[in-house]
Amino acid sequence: MDFAEKLVSQEVLYHGHVIQLDLENVTLPNGQPAKREVIHHPGAAAIMPFLPDGRMLFVEQWRQPLRQITYEIPAGKLDQRDQTPLHAAWRELNEETGYTAARMELVNTFFSSPGFADEKMYLYKALDLKPVTEQLPQDDDEFIRLHVLTLDEALAKQQAGVICDAKTVVAVQQWQIMTLQEAMK
Amino acid sequence: MDFAEKLVSQEVLYHGHVIQLDLENVTLPNGQPAKREVIHHPGAAAIMPFLPDGRMLFVEQWRQPLRQITYEIPAGKLDQRDQTPLHAAWRELNEETGYTAARMELVNTFFSSPGFADEKMYLYKALDLKPVTEQLPQDDDEFIRLHVLTLDEALAKQQAGVICDAKTVVAVQQWQIMTLQEAMK
Repeated sequence: MDFAEKLVSQEVLYHGHVIQLDLENVTLPNGQPAKREVIHHPGAAAIMPFLPDGRMLFVEQWRQPLRQITYEIPAGKLDQRDQTPLHAAWRELNEETGYTAARMELVNTFFSSPGFADEKMYLYKALDLKPVTEQLPQDDDEFIRLHVLTLDEALAKQQAGVICDAKTVVAVQQWQIMTLQEAMK
Repeated sequence: MDFAEKLVSQEVLYHGHVIQLDLENVTLPNGQPAKREVIHHPGAAAIMPFLPDGRMLFVEQWRQPLRQITYEIPAGKLDQRDQTPLHAAWRELNEETGYTAARMELVNTFFSSPGFADEKMYLYKALDLKPVTEQLPQDDDEFIRLHVLTLDEALAKQQAGVICDAKTVVAVQQWQIMTLQEAMK
């Protein structure tokens, strides 16, 4: 059985600053018509920034959709300046933390919410951080504060609901897996 | 410094089947005005369904926003029938897999994409699965196929890009952490 839905037509309902909302008319595998609400998003790069002492950097910021402060790993949307997601990762690391890295490695990629959005996250780890000589300006509408946490402190922040977004949960879990694997060597 | 953005006004741009799109006018911490695009979503329950042999159930389905097939853990939106997210977890486990569980435990909660959406995911593990005596009907527009995977098979599916959504990546990593912690005992 082929599960693919066939796109019949699509309509742009909203074209905004961050997202675009389309309404798609599709044909289901059983031949019936259905409508799909699809949010288009440019995708984003997120970084696990490891200091030489093994602690990681987190960014405190206000999240209006959640009406709360969160601690998240540095991240930012891909934009027209980026040839690749890796370019965005280098830029966001500089802009949000004032650090650069000796190495940046892809950890994994995933879609935030595949039921209604195409946002793809590229997760990197940045190793051997050192302060940049020239920090890029932050976005005008972005107010952030840096924090340095151990793994245990990060797990406690997650328990407290301050670390609470998917990409940062994935990053902290990845950190925990790396730590457990290291301990088993 | 207080990072909170103050809500000045909001406008509903689209009220759909799954999501609602609002445009919010806010005041930034520096007193400047800004606009925030906010997707409202009812939230969802997702389940890690463990068979008695330690393997886990995954659901294969078409994801129109991604234009591809994915393997995901069973999940579904909260709706007006649900007194709690746990109710939704029991219902979705039955509907999507035909199994029920002896126990259902909350693993964690997280927001899928806090930059533009308020979707909250409640992740449960379902233990000691057994087939239901009466399976609930699936949604009319949902076509799915069940798969049973070991942890190694799930990691390979992730490597191949078939397991590729945030909640399922969180679930597989959680499974990996549980397995590593068990091995260290």
